Amino acid sequence: MERTLTEVKPRREGVASQVGNETVVRCEALVYETSKAPEFIDITDEVDRIVQDSGVRFGQVTVYSAHTTAAIRINENEPLLLQDMARILHEIAPQHGEYEHNDFSRRTVNIEEEECANGHAHCQHLFLSTSETIPIVDGQLATGQWQRIFLVELDMPRQRKVLVNIIGVTA
Amino acid sequence: MERTLTEVKPRREGVASQVGNETVVRCEALVYETSKAPEFIDITDEVDRIVQDSGVRFGQVTVYSAHTTAAIRINENEPLLLQDMARILHEIAPQHGEYEHNDFSRRTVNIEEEECANGHAHCQHLFLSTSETIPIVDGQLATGQWQRIFLVELDMPRQRKVLVNIIGVTA
Amino acid sequence: MERTLTEVKPRREGVASQVGNETVVRCEALVYETSKAPEFIDITDEVDRIVQDSGVRFGQVTVYSAHTTAAIRINENEPLLLQDMARILHEIAPQHGEYEHNDFSRRTVNIEEEECANGHAHCQHLFLSTSETIPIVDGQLATGQWQRIFLVELDMPRQRKVLVNIIGVTA
Repeated sequence: MERTLTEVKPRREGVASQVGNETVVRCEALVYETSKAPEFIDITDEVDRIVQDSGVRFGQVTVYSAHTTAAIRINENEPLLLQDMARILHEIAPQHGEYEHNDFSRRTVNIEEEECANGHAHCQHLFLSTSETIPIVDGQLATGQWQRIFLVELDMPRQRKVLVNIIGVTA
Repeated sequence: MERTLTEVKPRREGVASQVGNETVVRCEALVYETSKAPEFIDITDEVDRIVQDSGVRFGQVTVYSAHTTAAIRINENEPLLLQDMARILHEIAPQHGEYEHNDFSRRTVNIEEEECANGHAHCQHLFLSTSETIPIVDGQLATGQWQRIFLVELDMPRQRKVLVNIIGVTA
Repeated sequence: MERTLTEVKPRREGVASQVGNETVVRCEALVYETSKAPEFIDITDEVDRIVQDSGVRFGQVTVYSAHTTAAIRINENEPLLLQDMARILHEIAPQHGEYEHNDFSRRTVNIEEEECANGHAHCQHLFLSTSETIPIVDGQLATGQWQRIFLVELDMPRQRKVLVNIIGVTA
């Protein structure tokens, strides 16, 4: 029998509650050289180190891609799975599909000297996300067992910047 | 006639501005037993209760799934719509499709004793999100009329943990 | 040769670190009249103005749609690309597809007087997002060169409300 929604009773667990007189805001950038597309670069360890160096015990960290064709996603780091996710991205918006954005004869704005045909990368990005926000509990990233944070390159290999922005209290 | 973007003039409304000498950070966990996949569990009331118990008047709450095959989404809680969304998830990444991740003869990492074939759940998760962040205004979740927060189970029924992480000021 | 993940060494750059005795929380609403679907309304300038008016130097802003059929996304504002993204949304969940949610003879909840058939808009929203969170660095939105914030109308033209919620420190 179908459960009704009101029958789903969760268990509620207090994790932490902290009042601080000082708010710490810390922002660092991580700069990566990507090598292909799509490429899933596991940046969890670097984010975790920045969180630990910040001294913030409770709060949150936002991991933010400063790009429109590189995304931030949390998923499992299993090599075969990364192949599956690459295939699904291709099915949604194949690289060699037809995109108005790639028709340089009609483009009037945002054309750069080395502009490449990247309509697929923008369209894939539409379904991913520019950032993820993760709680910080007791000075640690509160990620679950299998969760890894990825910078996802969708376009030509290049230098990419990820902002790691922390807000919280120290004690 | 097509509107140009500069013609779209919004009305700007001040909602609240608060300066606090104390920052409150509060994190609680909600633990659910899921029953099928996909399953949309409406967790809005529990999140709202935690927000109200926190005493935070202005700030924000991040609702975070600690899992790679269970997501957090905000949408309308209408039973027929939940069926449509289940169908769309299936179209994107069907459970019985072919996934490298499900080929245990080739997997070398992250294999657990009771590992089940869940490539579809990870791929669906790629297009959903691990968390949603919602403003807190005057001690309430600032959700719109039809917005409900869902924990979305994509994999086998199991115990799932949602972190509810609040940052803000009390007065 | 395939790179192993451990070979990807980022450059880490300190951006800012600020401790504040006062936390500022500021929330404003932007109200737009939309004109079609999908419609990508570039709201970056208004968000930036609110950030600058807040006096917050370091922190973050969450841009939040109070709706289940209007989303917030960050991407490039290039007119032909917006056409591509409209097409991709249509492919995922076409307006004239079949949706249980549109079968008013079977609907039992959430039916309004002027209810329109918008199953596609909800299903497209499932793959987009209700909000985006952006770091504030030195009093400015820390958006990259091509990043623009869009309110994405997916349903019938109407009045839409976007909350701009800022948390941070002033000095």
